[in-house]
Amino acid sequence: MNYTFSGRVSSLKPSAIREILKFTADPSVIPFAAGNPATEAFPTEEIAAISSTILENNPIGALQYSLTEGYPPLRDWIRRHLDKQGILGNDDDVVITSGAQQAIELSCKILCNEGDTVICEAPSFIGSLNAFKSNNVNLVGVPVLSDGICIDSLEKALLANPNTKMIYLIPNFQNPSGITMSLEKRKAVYDLASRFDVIIVEDDPYGALRFAGEDIPPIKSLDTEGRVIYCGSFSKILSPGMRVGYVCANSIPLQKIVVCKQVSDVHTNIWAQMVCERYFTIHDYDDHIENLRNIYRRKSKLMLDNLKWEMPTSISFTEPEGGLFIWATLPDNIDMMDFCKNAVKKKVAVVPGVAFMVSEDIATSSFRLNFSTPSDEKIVDGVKILANVAKSML
Amino acid sequence: MNYTFSGRVSSLKPSAIREILKFTADPSVIPFAAGNPATEAFPTEEIAAISSTILENNPIGALQYSLTEGYPPLRDWIRRHLDKQGILGNDDDVVITSGAQQAIELSCKILCNEGDTVICEAPSFIGSLNAFKSNNVNLVGVPVLSDGICIDSLEKALLANPNTKMIYLIPNFQNPSGITMSLEKRKAVYDLASRFDVIIVEDDPYGALRFAGEDIPPIKSLDTEGRVIYCGSFSKILSPGMRVGYVCANSIPLQKIVVCKQVSDVHTNIWAQMVCERYFTIHDYDDHIENLRNIYRRKSKLMLDNLKWEMPTSISFTEPEGGLFIWATLPDNIDMMDFCKNAVKKKVAVVPGVAFMVSEDIATSSFRLNFSTPSDEKIVDGVKILANVAKSML
Repeated sequence: MNYTFSGRVSSLKPSAIREILKFTADPSVIPFAAGNPATEAFPTEEIAAISSTILENNPIGALQYSLTEGYPPLRDWIRRHLDKQGILGNDDDVVITSGAQQAIELSCKILCNEGDTVICEAPSFIGSLNAFKSNNVNLVGVPVLSDGICIDSLEKALLANPNTKMIYLIPNFQNPSGITMSLEKRKAVYDLASRFDVIIVEDDPYGALRFAGEDIPPIKSLDTEGRVIYCGSFSKILSPGMRVGYVCANSIPLQKIVVCKQVSDVHTNIWAQMVCERYFTIHDYDDHIENLRNIYRRKSKLMLDNLKWEMPTSISFTEPEGGLFIWATLPDNIDMMDFCKNAVKKKVAVVPGVAFMVSEDIATSSFRLNFSTPSDEKIVDGVKILANVAKSML
Repeated sequence: MNYTFSGRVSSLKPSAIREILKFTADPSVIPFAAGNPATEAFPTEEIAAISSTILENNPIGALQYSLTEGYPPLRDWIRRHLDKQGILGNDDDVVITSGAQQAIELSCKILCNEGDTVICEAPSFIGSLNAFKSNNVNLVGVPVLSDGICIDSLEKALLANPNTKMIYLIPNFQNPSGITMSLEKRKAVYDLASRFDVIIVEDDPYGALRFAGEDIPPIKSLDTEGRVIYCGSFSKILSPGMRVGYVCANSIPLQKIVVCKQVSDVHTNIWAQMVCERYFTIHDYDDHIENLRNIYRRKSKLMLDNLKWEMPTSISFTEPEGGLFIWATLPDNIDMMDFCKNAVKKKVAVVPGVAFMVSEDIATSSFRLNFSTPSDEKIVDGVKILANVAKSML
């Protein structure tokens, strides 16, 4: 039969970068294109022990239907955790989601009609961009500078798009650029959102993974009006396979998110919620995070040092203070897509920068590197290969 | 601030039956309103053993990011399982979802624009009705007779609504009515869908739980055109808390579902997928299902016998051949909502029938009873209380 799909889904085009990304499943390819937590970052024995205890003491609780809003003790832990950081406002509450991805998608669903504008950073996280596209919104990208989104361009975008409903931002160690937004810019973004009466969706999956510099308050901590929807996750600090994230927001939009979550998946896997709660109740959060920071500080430095030693000086890199990604920019005389294709032929996969733009038609000479997934040996080998590819193209 | 929500979400009204449903969380209330598998139906020790082995042998595999389409060995098991029943067509494939709920919601998302018509049974499953409402479609309910949906009314609904995109059906032991659609009606529904060129979404969470009568082939097994999207689940046969379901469909709509699943939750909890695969690989499927059928045959008979003994003869009941629910209908001289309110005051919760209608404005004198959640003692006690409430209202 001939299928007719909804307008939202018809507009989802197959990606031109698929040809490169499909090689990431090949184990012989060095995985600089991935975004997985490092293997050594998983407390596997502790999780196995906790899981055993849960399935011994309360098996029905871990296997039966549960509440859409999430496991109450985990919600309590998160409330306390966010309250310490000044994130939880007076009229705010916390709901568990199936990864921060679900919180982002549902925020768009409750706020935007088809054709409404969502403003995001350019570049931004591909998973969120696709979530917005699947709601058939008008996506507008605003350039990211070394200290975060360009405020002048953001104001122009808001003026040019009076139907803007939300601004989507990743202020800490942004995916893909690795850039962190300064406090001044966070304040300026909040003021603009307030002036134009739009919601900010703040995506903070990497915030805990700061391995250099000083913490900067989240935009949500500046929120006096219930204007910011804050999305967090256990994916990068415990386990992404569990699919446990959360959303902190004013209870009015949060209730809409709960209704939409209920029709999406009823509730998040309850065993995983119980494991998260037990892990961070039994084990010291700060010690656990310090261990992760040490891992990523070392791996990030290893990749950056090797990039500086091996790569032609005409290629520039961001130097992230946390997170999992480095953003590399090629000189004008190297075609970025050709570079990525040549790299994967030599068994190193990176993500072409166009993947992170609101449209693949937007030109960029950048690509994304990930240092958390590959082993230390692969980091050294992979950078050498990339350097040889670059040199052969100059 | 004043929040403005999308048209889809603004149309989601708070439910008039909430006042009754909120009592279902009270442990002193007898839970005839729930839909949980029986406690004795969970193979808790076997799941704990399998989980231990997985977390010992392949902890990173169970905790790391995984594929959107699902765990390949589980997809293989489901393909074989569906193939045996003639469900898997030549151009079909299987994708794992976060419960059948996600498969149903995403089917609507890929097929329907706002305002398009979805036809469903009246009554039908509240979770699906809300999923459709959250996509702001025009919901049309077609009455269910003792052998399934009324074919004449379905044809009239299709004629009256030329923008119909999908027909949503639960052919086996329907939730809430407990009614099973005859083979003749399955064929007639398929022929109508073909004539009017609409998709059938077949929801079959209870199909395995037949405790009387003979299996009837699913509509999907009659599908020669790729017209049926078949939704299955491990919730009622292993564990709902794991949130593992699946969808079997022609690969063209299935690819659209995969893109939408990716932006919804990236993938389904991978540990739970591995547990499902191991459980049904190590343990005999037929033995496991026979055990569940015995449990529900006994509980269903206990509730029906007690209803027949205790209740006034003017109240009628469906006698399901499987599943978890009985549908009771009151005589005209008892107001259904008053009956439900009086019952919950006496500590027995049932679900008012309006909850399962496309609109709460539609009058019904029926309510739903669940026999899987309460213990045997609670079934006996609860029916006595309901009978006294009914007698006091006659």
